[in-house]
Amino acid sequence: MNVDHLGIAVPDLAAGLASWGPLLTGIPPPVEEVPSQRVRVAFLEFGGTHLELLEPTSPDSAVGRFLSSRGPGLHHIAFSVPSVNDALAAAAARGQRLIDQSARVGARGRKVGFVHPSGFQGVLVEFVEAP
Amino acid sequence: MNVDHLGIAVPDLAAGLASWGPLLTGIPPPVEEVPSQRVRVAFLEFGGTHLELLEPTSPDSAVGRFLSSRGPGLHHIAFSVPSVNDALAAAAARGQRLIDQSARVGARGRKVGFVHPSGFQGVLVEFVEAP
Repeated sequence: MNVDHLGIAVPDLAAGLASWGPLLTGIPPPVEEVPSQRVRVAFLEFGGTHLELLEPTSPDSAVGRFLSSRGPGLHHIAFSVPSVNDALAAAAARGQRLIDQSARVGARGRKVGFVHPSGFQGVLVEFVEAP
Repeated sequence: MNVDHLGIAVPDLAAGLASWGPLLTGIPPPVEEVPSQRVRVAFLEFGGTHLELLEPTSPDSAVGRFLSSRGPGLHHIAFSVPSVNDALAAAAARGQRLIDQSARVGARGRKVGFVHPSGFQGVLVEFVEAP
Protein backbone atom coordinates (compact mmCIF):
# COMPACT_ATOMS: atom_id res chain seq x y z
CA MET A 1 0.00 0.00 0.00
CA ASN A 2 1.51 3.35 -1.04
CA VAL A 3 1.15 6.78 0.49
CA ASP A 4 -0.83 8.85 -2.02
CA HIS A 5 -0.89 12.16 -0.21
CA LEU A 6 -0.86 13.96 3.10
CA GLY A 7 -3.65 16.39 3.93
CA ILE A 8 -2.83 19.70 5.64
CA ALA A 9 -5.56 21.99 6.98
CA VAL A 10 -4.90 25.68 6.30
CA PRO A 11 -7.07 28.71 7.04
CA ASP A 12 -6.00 30.35 3.80
CA LEU A 13 -4.93 28.50 0.66
CA ALA A 14 -2.91 31.40 -0.79
CA ALA A 15 -0.90 31.76 2.42
CA GLY A 16 -0.44 28.00 2.52
CA LEU A 17 0.90 27.95 -1.02
CA ALA A 18 3.25 30.80 -0.13
CA SER A 19 4.63 28.77 2.80
CA TRP A 20 5.16 25.55 0.88
CA GLY A 21 6.01 27.00 -2.52
CA PRO A 22 9.74 27.50 -1.83
CA LEU A 23 10.14 23.74 -1.26
CA LEU A 24 8.51 22.94 -4.61
CA THR A 25 10.56 22.35 -7.68
CA GLY A 26 7.57 22.19 -10.05
CA ILE A 27 4.93 24.66 -11.09
CA PRO A 28 2.33 26.04 -8.66
CA PRO A 29 -0.68 23.69 -8.60
CA PRO A 30 -4.22 24.44 -9.71
CA VAL A 31 -6.87 25.03 -7.04
CA GLU A 32 -9.94 22.77 -7.03
CA GLU A 33 -13.18 23.19 -5.10
CA VAL A 34 -14.67 19.99 -3.63
CA PRO A 35 -18.26 20.90 -2.75
CA SER A 36 -19.03 17.52 -1.14
CA GLN A 37 -16.36 18.17 1.48
CA ARG A 38 -16.75 21.96 1.56
CA VAL A 39 -13.08 22.60 0.90
CA ARG A 40 -10.84 24.19 -1.68
CA VAL A 41 -7.72 22.13 -2.25
CA ALA A 42 -4.37 22.26 -4.00
CA PHE A 43 -2.07 19.28 -4.49
CA LEU A 44 1.67 19.98 -4.29
CA GLU A 45 3.90 17.22 -5.63
CA PHE A 46 7.03 16.17 -3.77
CA GLY A 47 8.62 13.28 -5.61
CA GLY A 48 5.57 11.10 -6.09
CA THR A 49 3.92 11.95 -2.77
CA HIS A 50 1.59 14.94 -2.66
CA LEU A 51 0.69 17.43 0.01
CA GLU A 52 -2.99 18.38 -0.19
CA LEU A 53 -3.62 21.83 1.26
CA LEU A 54 -7.23 22.05 2.44
CA GLU A 55 -9.00 25.37 3.04
CA PRO A 56 -12.56 25.09 4.38
CA THR A 57 -15.31 26.92 2.48
CA SER A 58 -17.53 26.69 5.58
CA PRO A 59 -16.59 26.93 9.28
CA ASP A 60 -18.83 23.95 10.10
CA SER A 61 -17.24 21.64 7.53
CA ALA A 62 -15.02 18.84 8.86
CA VAL A 63 -11.88 20.83 8.03
CA GLY A 64 -13.38 24.03 9.43
CA ARG A 65 -14.09 22.29 12.74
CA PHE A 66 -10.59 20.80 12.76
CA LEU A 67 -9.08 24.29 12.35
CA SER A 68 -11.28 25.68 15.14
CA SER A 69 -10.34 22.97 17.61
CA ARG A 70 -6.71 22.17 16.73
CA GLY A 71 -5.45 24.97 14.50
CA PRO A 72 -3.75 24.52 11.15
CA GLY A 73 -1.57 21.50 10.56
CA LEU A 74 -1.37 17.88 9.50
CA HIS A 75 -4.92 16.58 8.96
CA HIS A 76 -4.92 13.13 7.34
CA ILE A 77 -2.86 10.55 5.48
CA ALA A 78 -4.14 8.96 2.29
CA PHE A 79 -3.14 5.56 0.92
CA SER A 80 -3.56 4.52 -2.69
CA VAL A 81 -5.54 1.27 -2.99
CA PRO A 82 -6.91 -0.78 -5.89
CA SER A 83 -10.43 -0.68 -4.40
CA VAL A 84 -11.67 1.79 -1.79
CA ASN A 85 -14.68 -0.40 -1.01
CA ASP A 86 -12.44 -3.43 -0.39
CA ALA A 87 -10.11 -1.36 1.82
CA LEU A 88 -13.07 -0.02 3.84
CA ALA A 89 -14.50 -3.53 4.21
CA ALA A 90 -11.13 -4.82 5.45
CA ALA A 91 -10.92 -1.98 7.99
CA ALA A 92 -14.43 -2.72 9.23
CA ALA A 93 -13.54 -6.41 9.53
CA ARG A 94 -10.59 -5.39 11.77
CA GLY A 95 -13.09 -3.59 14.00
CA GLN A 96 -12.11 -0.09 12.87
CA ARG A 97 -14.84 2.53 12.81
CA LEU A 98 -15.62 3.89 9.33
CA ILE A 99 -16.52 7.46 8.46
CA ASP A 100 -17.60 6.39 4.97
CA GLN A 101 -19.44 3.10 4.64
CA SER A 102 -18.66 3.03 0.93
CA ALA A 103 -16.59 4.96 -1.62
CA ARG A 104 -17.63 8.45 -2.66
CA VAL A 105 -16.16 10.93 -5.12
CA GLY A 106 -13.49 13.23 -3.69
CA ALA A 107 -10.87 15.61 -5.03
CA ARG A 108 -9.45 14.99 -8.51
CA GLY A 109 -12.61 12.97 -9.30
CA ARG A 110 -11.14 9.98 -7.47
CA LYS A 111 -13.07 7.47 -5.34
CA VAL A 112 -12.23 8.01 -1.67
CA GLY A 113 -13.27 6.72 1.75
CA PHE A 114 -12.24 7.65 5.30
CA VAL A 115 -11.58 5.55 8.41
CA HIS A 116 -12.11 7.21 11.82
CA PRO A 117 -8.92 8.28 13.67
CA SER A 118 -9.79 5.91 16.53
CA GLY A 119 -8.80 3.03 14.23
CA PHE A 120 -5.26 4.32 13.74
CA GLN A 121 -4.26 5.77 17.10
CA GLY A 122 -5.45 9.30 16.39
CA VAL A 123 -4.64 9.49 12.68
CA LEU A 124 -7.41 10.15 10.15
CA VAL A 125 -6.85 7.70 7.28
CA GLU A 126 -8.17 8.06 3.74
CA PHE A 127 -8.15 5.43 1.02
CA VAL A 128 -7.91 6.73 -2.55
CA GLU A 129 -8.63 4.56 -5.57
CA ALA A 130 -5.99 4.53 -8.29
CA PRO A 131 -7.32 6.33 -11.40
CA MET B 1 12.36 17.71 -2.76
CA ASN B 2 10.93 14.31 -1.83
CA VAL B 3 8.87 13.26 1.17
CA ASP B 4 11.11 10.94 3.20
CA HIS B 5 8.72 10.06 6.01
CA LEU B 6 5.82 11.13 8.14
CA GLY B 7 6.18 11.11 11.91
CA ILE B 8 3.31 9.85 14.08
CA ALA B 9 3.33 10.24 17.87
CA VAL B 10 2.04 7.19 19.71
CA PRO B 11 1.85 6.52 23.44
CA ASP B 12 2.76 2.87 22.90
CA LEU B 13 4.88 1.57 20.04
CA ALA B 14 3.54 -2.00 20.21
CA ALA B 15 -0.06 -0.79 20.00
CA GLY B 16 0.92 1.55 17.16
CA LEU B 17 2.50 -1.30 15.23
CA ALA B 18 -0.64 -3.37 15.80
CA SER B 19 -2.78 -0.59 14.31
CA TRP B 20 -0.67 0.00 11.23
CA GLY B 21 0.59 -3.54 10.68
CA PRO B 22 -2.45 -4.71 8.68
CA LEU B 23 -1.74 -2.05 6.01
CA LEU B 24 1.87 -3.21 5.65
CA THR B 25 2.88 -5.63 2.96
CA GLY B 26 6.44 -6.06 4.22
CA ILE B 27 7.96 -7.42 7.38
CA PRO B 28 7.48 -5.75 10.77
CA PRO B 29 10.18 -3.12 11.25
CA PRO B 30 12.94 -3.09 13.87
CA VAL B 31 12.61 -0.72 16.83
CA GLU B 32 15.37 1.84 17.40
CA GLU B 33 15.99 4.03 20.42
CA VAL B 34 17.10 7.62 19.69
CA PRO B 35 18.47 8.92 23.01
CA SER B 36 19.07 12.47 21.70
CA GLN B 37 15.33 12.86 21.07
CA ARG B 38 14.18 10.61 23.94
CA VAL B 39 12.04 8.44 21.67
CA ARG B 40 11.81 4.87 20.51
CA VAL B 41 10.94 4.69 16.81
CA ALA B 42 9.95 2.23 14.13
CA PHE B 43 9.88 2.99 10.40
CA LEU B 44 7.09 1.35 8.38
CA GLU B 45 7.56 1.41 4.62
CA PHE B 46 4.68 2.23 2.31
CA GLY B 47 5.95 2.29 -1.26
CA GLY B 48 9.01 4.45 -0.78
CA THR B 49 7.48 6.73 1.86
CA HIS B 50 7.82 5.72 5.49
CA LEU B 51 5.69 6.25 8.55
CA GLU B 52 7.85 6.81 11.64
CA LEU B 53 6.05 5.79 14.82
CA LEU B 54 7.48 7.74 17.75
CA GLU B 55 7.00 6.64 21.36
CA PRO B 56 8.47 8.99 23.97
CA THR B 57 10.85 7.54 26.54
CA SER B 58 10.25 10.56 28.79
CA PRO B 59 7.06 12.58 29.35
CA ASP B 60 8.99 15.85 29.11
CA SER B 61 10.56 15.05 25.73
CA ALA B 62 9.22 16.94 22.69
CA VAL B 63 7.08 13.97 21.66
CA GLY B 64 5.93 13.40 25.25
CA ARG B 65 4.76 17.01 25.51
CA PHE B 66 3.04 16.74 22.12
CA LEU B 67 1.11 13.67 23.33
CA SER B 68 0.11 15.46 26.55
CA SER B 69 -1.19 18.53 24.80
CA ARG B 70 -2.63 17.15 21.53
CA GLY B 71 -2.92 13.40 21.95
CA PRO B 72 -1.59 10.79 19.54
CA GLY B 73 -1.50 11.54 15.83
CA LEU B 74 0.42 13.10 12.96
CA HIS B 75 3.50 14.84 14.33
CA HIS B 76 5.84 15.98 11.55
CA ILE B 77 6.70 15.64 7.88
CA ALA B 78 10.26 14.98 6.75
CA PHE B 79 11.78 15.88 3.40
CA SER B 80 14.87 14.26 1.96
CA VAL B 81 17.51 16.85 1.03
CA PRO B 82 21.09 16.72 -0.26
CA SER B 83 22.30 18.90 2.63
CA VAL B 84 20.45 19.54 5.89
CA ASN B 85 22.61 22.55 6.67
CA ASP B 86 21.85 24.11 3.28
CA ALA B 87 18.10 23.45 3.72
CA LEU B 88 18.14 25.00 7.21
CA ALA B 89 20.05 28.04 5.91
CA ALA B 90 17.51 28.49 3.10
CA ALA B 91 14.64 28.30 5.59
CA ALA B 92 16.29 30.88 7.84
CA ALA B 93 16.85 33.14 4.81
CA ARG B 94 13.08 32.94 4.15
CA GLY B 95 12.51 34.16 7.70
CA GLN B 96 11.41 30.79 9.07
CA ARG B 97 12.27 30.04 12.68
CA LEU B 98 14.64 27.12 13.14
CA ILE B 99 14.52 24.54 15.91
CA ASP B 100 17.96 23.26 14.95
CA GLN B 101 20.56 25.81 13.90
CA SER B 102 22.58 23.07 12.25
CA ALA B 103 22.32 19.38 11.41
CA ARG B 104 22.43 16.80 14.18
CA VAL B 105 22.29 13.00 14.15
CA GLY B 106 18.78 11.53 14.30
CA ALA B 107 17.16 8.15 13.74
CA ARG B 108 18.87 5.70 11.38
CA GLY B 109 22.15 7.58 11.94
CA ARG B 110 21.03 10.24 9.43
CA LYS B 111 21.71 13.98 9.66
CA VAL B 112 18.48 15.82 10.49
CA GLY B 113 17.27 19.33 11.30
CA PHE B 114 13.86 20.75 12.24
CA VAL B 115 12.08 23.97 11.26
CA HIS B 116 9.50 25.38 13.71
CA PRO B 117 5.82 24.80 12.77
CA SER B 118 5.28 28.57 12.58
CA GLY B 119 7.22 28.54 9.31
CA PHE B 120 4.85 26.10 7.64
CA GLN B 121 1.42 27.07 8.90
CA GLY B 122 1.39 24.74 11.88
CA VAL B 123 3.33 21.83 10.40
CA LEU B 124 6.58 20.69 12.01
CA VAL B 125 9.06 20.15 9.16
CA GLU B 126 12.18 17.98 9.31
CA PHE B 127 14.97 17.83 6.75
CA VAL B 128 16.78 14.49 6.45
CA GLU B 129 20.06 14.10 4.61
CA ALA B 130 20.23 11.33 2.04
CA PRO B 131 22.56 8.56 3.27
